[in-house]
Amino acid sequence: MTIPASDPGELAARRDSALRDYEALRARSLSLDLTRGKPSARQLDLADRMLTLPGGHTAADGTDCRNYGGLQGLPELREIFSGPLQVPAGQLIAAGNSSLALMHDSIVHALLDRVPGADRRWVDEPRIAFLCPVPGYDRHFALCERFGIEMISVPMTADGPDMDVVERLVREDAQIKGIWCIPKYSNPSGISYSDETVRRLAAMPAAAPDFRIFWDNAYAVHHLTDTPVEIADVLALCAEHGHPDRAFVFGSTSKVTFSGGGVAFFGSSEANVAWTLKNTAKRTIGPDKLNHLRHVEFFGDTDGVLAHMRRHAELLRPRFDLVETVLTKELGGTGLASWTTPAGGYFVTLDVLPGCAREVVRRAGEAGIALTPAGATHPYGDDPRDSTIRIAPTYPDLAELELAITGLTVCVRLVATEKLLEQAG
Amino acid sequence: MTIPASDPGELAARRDSALRDYEALRARSLSLDLTRGKPSARQLDLADRMLTLPGGHTAADGTDCRNYGGLQGLPELREIFSGPLQVPAGQLIAAGNSSLALMHDSIVHALLDRVPGADRRWVDEPRIAFLCPVPGYDRHFALCERFGIEMISVPMTADGPDMDVVERLVREDAQIKGIWCIPKYSNPSGISYSDETVRRLAAMPAAAPDFRIFWDNAYAVHHLTDTPVEIADVLALCAEHGHPDRAFVFGSTSKVTFSGGGVAFFGSSEANVAWTLKNTAKRTIGPDKLNHLRHVEFFGDTDGVLAHMRRHAELLRPRFDLVETVLTKELGGTGLASWTTPAGGYFVTLDVLPGCAREVVRRAGEAGIALTPAGATHPYGDDPRDSTIRIAPTYPDLAELELAITGLTVCVRLVATEKLLEQAG
Repeated sequence: MTIPASDPGELAARRDSALRDYEALRARSLSLDLTRGKPSARQLDLADRMLTLPGGHTAADGTDCRNYGGLQGLPELREIFSGPLQVPAGQLIAAGNSSLALMHDSIVHALLDRVPGADRRWVDEPRIAFLCPVPGYDRHFALCERFGIEMISVPMTADGPDMDVVERLVREDAQIKGIWCIPKYSNPSGISYSDETVRRLAAMPAAAPDFRIFWDNAYAVHHLTDTPVEIADVLALCAEHGHPDRAFVFGSTSKVTFSGGGVAFFGSSEANVAWTLKNTAKRTIGPDKLNHLRHVEFFGDTDGVLAHMRRHAELLRPRFDLVETVLTKELGGTGLASWTTPAGGYFVTLDVLPGCAREVVRRAGEAGIALTPAGATHPYGDDPRDSTIRIAPTYPDLAELELAITGLTVCVRLVATEKLLEQAG
Repeated sequence: MTIPASDPGELAARRDSALRDYEALRARSLSLDLTRGKPSARQLDLADRMLTLPGGHTAADGTDCRNYGGLQGLPELREIFSGPLQVPAGQLIAAGNSSLALMHDSIVHALLDRVPGADRRWVDEPRIAFLCPVPGYDRHFALCERFGIEMISVPMTADGPDMDVVERLVREDAQIKGIWCIPKYSNPSGISYSDETVRRLAAMPAAAPDFRIFWDNAYAVHHLTDTPVEIADVLALCAEHGHPDRAFVFGSTSKVTFSGGGVAFFGSSEANVAWTLKNTAKRTIGPDKLNHLRHVEFFGDTDGVLAHMRRHAELLRPRFDLVETVLTKELGGTGLASWTTPAGGYFVTLDVLPGCAREVVRRAGEAGIALTPAGATHPYGDDPRDSTIRIAPTYPDLAELELAITGLTVCVRLVATEKLLEQAG
């Protein structure tokens, strides 16, 4: 994206045109929501057969899933998700309905109980910091804020976080205890980590003996194309490079079956899994194994998961195509914005001219188009360039989505031309 | 229970008789389990209709329960359990499948975020202590051990914890931040707190401004008789006595519907609920509302819950009656043991002669009868009198239960007569 050079007269004309479009947009009194990465009702319908499952209650090994116990979760469900999450089933925990909760609890356990390799509990450290590739996921950042964990932004490249920066910081600062990673179809950029990025994350020396990669593989099977992205196996690479306990892997079926009624997973080395189970055993007698069984009956096997995700893709691809089409039509070649074209996941990142994102979101809000707050993609809600906007195109229907994205482009044109005029004046 | 005085000859004869019975017991190679308070398969069958619910997915207010959100849980489910748990529905949170998890998380939140009224986070306190009425629930004690919380035992009376002791300790020691209470059909004694006990708990001055009652109302609707025990309303009494934020109320359907697939509840003052929801919002986007809806459809209303619990009682009453019958037949009038006769809940407490409980449990184990470890009913696994044994009669079938309790009485007779002989000698 290059900032366009225009003469003031032409700029003013474009601003006036955008302003007329904006007033027309406002006059329509829209009420559209592009804020959260929620599946649409039609996507949820795909799993409606689960609403009358499991029917029975007996696991493969004879366990009565209605009763207490089974802390690690149903083995046959862990088998099904072992491949997609790249975690051996024996090192995978199937838990409740929220992978965010597993991330939260992993931090809590590390704060209050020494994580394998740690010299002390994190709560006893003078300072803890996490690396935050940006743009990133606001709920990760909210967890850091909640626990007083300092956030250090790291720029994203097309291959993942800028590894030169990551390696230097992690090597030098023993108080850096973690890094947030969404390695596949990342939220919000949609990019996937290259094999070399994963290898460097696994291999790099860390000053902290208890450094952890929080590997939020939220979109492991959420492909939009017929050529699924496959990322490198982080657990295997960590082990190979002498850091077997480095990665905590998270995943869930929240955007596979039901967002409210899915199953979340934690995977790691045997030592980390034992540590997590030891702490989890104090918290609960076991997860909802009936929901595990419900998922097993619904999917049958891993191929069942992949087939199910192709049906999601059929619903999602037209939405992402529409976003691409409208952005290209309205903003292509203007130099006012650039955007990602993800091959999976739930988001498109729209980059507007520096200093414009907040104002675009504000203007869109005034026109009845709710967007994720500008800055939410960055630690402390502060996008220093004020240019990143996250678009979540999955929830609205196609007609609403077209209205919303078209309206958004009007706001982008308006705010950008105003900004350029201001700078020119 | 008075320790019987017998002449050595008579004692030796009784010991020999018990030893013969014990050898006969061992020869049967039993494998029976009285350890945990688990519902039997027949009890779980009572809720099997839930295995094909909810069928639909729409809450009363139109919410799509399949999707994200609804942090406080389904309002109509909270309405149903508001009465039984004595918490206004607006101050009740319906969560995941484990009330133990809610207790764990309440402690975590208090450790890492100032609970309303606190001067500082508990993790920043030089020392934290909880009062533990004994005998009590081992998983409560395990939570304290996990978080380095000192446990101070308080004797139970027939009306609940000895309130003279509780009042004195809580008034004098600002580091006492909590007390564990199972106010109805307590685990393991089966006793219920008198209204006066609840009033004193609510009214007593506390040195700690952030003192909390952990009110684990696990057996709120788990009556065994046709004259259900009703306890006083702890939240109302706390508010009335100027301590509105004192009580955290917990409950669940783990022993109502499915132990693995139930719903857990947290209730408290508005300030505490807001504090809990604020912290929970960082942890998860929402609970499994489909499981909430499943419970709503199954019960219909509060009367549906109570009717369901009468069916549980029909299954459980014969088991508790059997325990009473066998204990009376084998140990009544011997002076070797006393036991409780609960009107609800899941446990019977058997008190044997001081210094005998561990040995009774060991001998029973050798004869194939697994009991909860002696001492588990006390903090740090240490029953100073070594006399309390917890019996969990719900899981085995009646024939197994009769074998197990009869076998247990053999062990009691053997160990007690050995002990008395030793003392006489």
